[in-house]
Amino acid sequence: MATTTTDDSRKENNHDLTRERSNASFNINEITEIIDGGVEKTKFRKEMEKLLFDDPMFKDFYKTFFKTRSELYEESIARGVKLFSLRQKYKWTDEQFEVVEDLVNHLFGMSLHFTMFIPSLERLATETQKAKWLPLATNFKILGTYAQTEMGHGTYLQGLETTATYDPVTEEFILNTPHKSSMKWWPGSLGKSSTHAVVQAVLIINGKNYGMHPFMLQLRSLDNHMPLPGIEVGDIGPKMTLNYNDNGFLLLKNVRIPRQHMLMKHAQVSSDGKYTSSGPNKAIYATMVLVRVKMTKWVHDALRQAITTAIRYSAVRHQSKMDDSGPEPQIIDYQTQQYKLFPVLADTYALFFMSRNLRRQYNRMMEEIRNKGSYKMLAEIHSISCGLKGLSSKIGIDGASICRTACGGHGYLMVAGISEVLGLLHSVVTAEGEYTIVLLQTARYLMKQIARVSVGEVVTESCEYLNVDPQSFSCPLQTLADCFNLTFLCDIFRNRANSLIRSVASRLQIAIESGTPQHIAMNNNLQSLVRVAEAHCETIMVLDFTAAVTSLRTSPETIKVLTSLCQLHALHTIVKNAGDFMETESVGLEQMKMIREQELKLLEIIRPNAVALVDAFDLHDDSLGSLLGVYDGHVYERLYESTKYNPMNQKEVHPSYYKYLKPLMSGEMISKL
Amino acid sequence: MATTTTDDSRKENNHDLTRERSNASFNINEITEIIDGGVEKTKFRKEMEKLLFDDPMFKDFYKTFFKTRSELYEESIARGVKLFSLRQKYKWTDEQFEVVEDLVNHLFGMSLHFTMFIPSLERLATETQKAKWLPLATNFKILGTYAQTEMGHGTYLQGLETTATYDPVTEEFILNTPHKSSMKWWPGSLGKSSTHAVVQAVLIINGKNYGMHPFMLQLRSLDNHMPLPGIEVGDIGPKMTLNYNDNGFLLLKNVRIPRQHMLMKHAQVSSDGKYTSSGPNKAIYATMVLVRVKMTKWVHDALRQAITTAIRYSAVRHQSKMDDSGPEPQIIDYQTQQYKLFPVLADTYALFFMSRNLRRQYNRMMEEIRNKGSYKMLAEIHSISCGLKGLSSKIGIDGASICRTACGGHGYLMVAGISEVLGLLHSVVTAEGEYTIVLLQTARYLMKQIARVSVGEVVTESCEYLNVDPQSFSCPLQTLADCFNLTFLCDIFRNRANSLIRSVASRLQIAIESGTPQHIAMNNNLQSLVRVAEAHCETIMVLDFTAAVTSLRTSPETIKVLTSLCQLHALHTIVKNAGDFMETESVGLEQMKMIREQELKLLEIIRPNAVALVDAFDLHDDSLGSLLGVYDGHVYERLYESTKYNPMNQKEVHPSYYKYLKPLMSGEMISKL
Repeated sequence: MATTTTDDSRKENNHDLTRERSNASFNINEITEIIDGGVEKTKFRKEMEKLLFDDPMFKDFYKTFFKTRSELYEESIARGVKLFSLRQKYKWTDEQFEVVEDLVNHLFGMSLHFTMFIPSLERLATETQKAKWLPLATNFKILGTYAQTEMGHGTYLQGLETTATYDPVTEEFILNTPHKSSMKWWPGSLGKSSTHAVVQAVLIINGKNYGMHPFMLQLRSLDNHMPLPGIEVGDIGPKMTLNYNDNGFLLLKNVRIPRQHMLMKHAQVSSDGKYTSSGPNKAIYATMVLVRVKMTKWVHDALRQAITTAIRYSAVRHQSKMDDSGPEPQIIDYQTQQYKLFPVLADTYALFFMSRNLRRQYNRMMEEIRNKGSYKMLAEIHSISCGLKGLSSKIGIDGASICRTACGGHGYLMVAGISEVLGLLHSVVTAEGEYTIVLLQTARYLMKQIARVSVGEVVTESCEYLNVDPQSFSCPLQTLADCFNLTFLCDIFRNRANSLIRSVASRLQIAIESGTPQHIAMNNNLQSLVRVAEAHCETIMVLDFTAAVTSLRTSPETIKVLTSLCQLHALHTIVKNAGDFMETESVGLEQMKMIREQELKLLEIIRPNAVALVDAFDLHDDSLGSLLGVYDGHVYERLYESTKYNPMNQKEVHPSYYKYLKPLMSGEMISKL
Repeated sequence: MATTTTDDSRKENNHDLTRERSNASFNINEITEIIDGGVEKTKFRKEMEKLLFDDPMFKDFYKTFFKTRSELYEESIARGVKLFSLRQKYKWTDEQFEVVEDLVNHLFGMSLHFTMFIPSLERLATETQKAKWLPLATNFKILGTYAQTEMGHGTYLQGLETTATYDPVTEEFILNTPHKSSMKWWPGSLGKSSTHAVVQAVLIINGKNYGMHPFMLQLRSLDNHMPLPGIEVGDIGPKMTLNYNDNGFLLLKNVRIPRQHMLMKHAQVSSDGKYTSSGPNKAIYATMVLVRVKMTKWVHDALRQAITTAIRYSAVRHQSKMDDSGPEPQIIDYQTQQYKLFPVLADTYALFFMSRNLRRQYNRMMEEIRNKGSYKMLAEIHSISCGLKGLSSKIGIDGASICRTACGGHGYLMVAGISEVLGLLHSVVTAEGEYTIVLLQTARYLMKQIARVSVGEVVTESCEYLNVDPQSFSCPLQTLADCFNLTFLCDIFRNRANSLIRSVASRLQIAIESGTPQHIAMNNNLQSLVRVAEAHCETIMVLDFTAAVTSLRTSPETIKVLTSLCQLHALHTIVKNAGDFMETESVGLEQMKMIREQELKLLEIIRPNAVALVDAFDLHDDSLGSLLGVYDGHVYERLYESTKYNPMNQKEVHPSYYKYLKPLMSGEMISKL
């Protein structure tokens, strides 16, 4: 018989979870504080949880799954307005507001007002322009977004088609989206909410194309919110997730704006149509980097929701028998279930430490820019953040997909919350640089670095391993115990990436030297280039995780359990890419056998701490948004209770009965045909 | 500039697609007829397309994405009732109705009435019972479903908890779902539609448990559709997809039904409570096998929707530049895009030929059962269908996920149709036997077969390769051309599966001989067992595809293009599992290099026929359900048009403006806090 808890027992947690928790070998608070960034930050987060989740507007996240799109949009606008007002009232810093955003899973409207609109003004507007628009924006007199992506072009900015043609007679720009493919399509909060947008358009003066420039455009009347003349704006339709957001489209037909509405910090057009520019704007790249850096953290956030649910549910769910005589085991006791979930758990931690380190590197770079005006670190951080954003999204999708299926049929319910996470992660793969495109950015950087090595120049820190000759490598794994040695494992990852990079570089060189045009040689090796970028980024993740666990200042038990996760992350990544590691002779046949054996051994080592390791993420039930993953483990009761809120159950007899089923049963329907 | 077509040019197809089509080297009708099963069947399908898609009820599938769950349910009931009436009117055979079901993507309500309820009566009821209930069911006087799965138990039938206790005084059974975990949860069409259900419950007579038995239960009044006393029934809530279906829950509290409502073909309870049984019912297993056989075909159906969309869209979409001077290429010309999509295309064809062969084997088995009463083939077909259903679902999810991301941002829109396909495929992974469970069924069968080999007994056809000693194997690939030799590739697949199976069998034997209890030895090798079942099933797929293309009676050009897909399917499967193939020494280092080179070579070979190869599936736009994949290629126009049907755009100003945004902008909201 399955584990059941009666309604009376609801006051106590599910007894399986209680036992799991008491079996943990470490103090979960130590990990929680590492993740929050210190005890003070944990305290702040808990205060925010109280403030938000005592408010019915933010409670019971799972109920959003019963809403129509329009209701979802309305709820998100209500939440956004509430959060903006609270932000104003409590004077939260940006960092504090990020905590709040994470707690509500970014499920609120108009978020681009703070994340894109205001920062765009700060970055792109002149002082005069800022003095005019920033107070309006920060006091919500205008609500804005950022409109760049078009139906025909996303990542490839040179292809954008919206035009801003200067008319010196009236001193205005005339904005147009000349083709269907030129309409803005995708910008968040554009469809129904925003009154203004920073619009990217190709600047044309006297028939000459000056490339993409930013313009301030009012979309809707401040009196009645109606679109202004020449402007057609609306919602682009339902998506995999993010359906609370009114991602929008925008068609412009001869919309005239004053010359002063071009954001002129970096380039200017004078009243007589003279163009001046202070050159390429590096600061804009730094902002793009920040978005990708943040996205690696969002993947961690999303994946920890999925893995928390999957592991808790696997501890609560009992099924089948291993042995004819015994009881039905918790499904987490099956090796196959562990093999699905524990590597995802390890990946989730790996993502955290990688993303923390990436953010620190980003902060160091910004400090250099601010203090010394030096953009020296930009190329490297750009290349790393591209690849790691891509790789994270892949790890995220794969991991969430595993969690989804590991929860069986019930994982297919929306209230399980994992489908939502999976859909969200799908957006990360394509947003802010499509997977392949960003990986190729990283690959191009790697090709430059290996070229430097070949002429004896110094390479950047993330590529230092390129200085080693792979010919001199021999796999250090000689015993089973060696497979847990993180130094050895890091060397193996470095060697595999090094070998792959050198092999593509040499294939490219041979092709070009033999007369193949460079772009064809590149295209013929594009897939290999993606593969080397993945190998490089997987190396960074193992190195970051290793560096983190070997430098932790916490109790030995916590270090021990995180070290096991780091080992599992490394070994599982090798097993998943066994071909690569063997083809580059980073490991041999015998070593692969040992690695596979030790990978399974780690499942046993991690098993007693599995539930505690997801508890350590300390996700509030209202942030988790899953009825399968609730802290108290009363899964079946919650599922049943959720049926009460399901609109399909509001009436015993659905109207379709009278319209269709009754006529079918009475024979009336068939006689009508 | 992106490819744009003006509204005027809408009469003509997109010119990229026209050029692609004219470049094809083969006649697509030849493949279409192979897939339909002959020219007559193609003709019937086209007639059905006309009948259905001229009817507004079945047109414009993509508009379903704008509907609420309740609307979706209502629409599906309307469609179901219409289809049932048409079935009655035209006297379609089961096979013909399957064609109709496929055309509408199974998007209609009450489908279990024909696929589960009526077959259950036919299989489980006595002649007297059939005479009573079948006419009612076939004339829609009652509408039924099949209720087996409970909240606490799915695959593990021995764990079911619903009870049917016999009361000899009143000659009734008393039905109960004693715990929360015992309520029926998941059965399709149960929530709001069905008036009756065949309910599986544990039979109890005089306190003795006789195991699971089927009972006919009336759920709702035939007068007003209200649930009958003691019955609580409803919808379980929103799911990843399948939201038109009212998958339901059912609680039973002392519901009394007459003794004659136990379906007594295979087991009987007499009025005085005497139990008799004609023994285990093998026919029930044959039915379970049929469902899994059909599911492998559904995966093909779903994946061909996704790949049709992704390949057509990749031919229409232009982006970035390879070369600074040239135009923006079709994205299908990038090697990375080909590497994503062409293996999925090859897998889609592989799934078709595998599933066709599986259905033929099933039909042979049923013939043996009917003609000779011989169940000899059952164990083998059961084992194959388990594993292939599992493997298909995995190939399906991976493939659809790739198609989704290969379509970039627009692939994230619901009207792209791929998210829906992905969600549908997620249901196949868990329905009718969860992935791991079914693979382990196959693995157990393989362990039995290898044990037979070791004592010199004959093994079944699918396992014949176990008769070879892997020690004697040496990889036959010596040249690049050898990598296209399907005989060689089949041998390599056989050797890899053979080696893996023998290695697990030997580990299990050693563990058990050294005293490890069998269930622990099994659990310690569970993941390896899944791996060998996957290897076995991948071998079957390559063998089936090879057998099909080498025995085709059609034009040489068609055979050539299908052979390339078969080669790509095989090589890509090796590359994805390179570790396995190298660890079992089925291929060596040098061979892996050649395989990777030839895998890329095949992308170039397939490229000119890519669009034609998806056109050959001949999916009507209203079956495809994707605005990115439409036959005429006018993607951007369709996307824009779809915004007109989006309920979010029905009003220029959303009500949330008055409720929330306006008060925020006026400062009213903040002063209220």
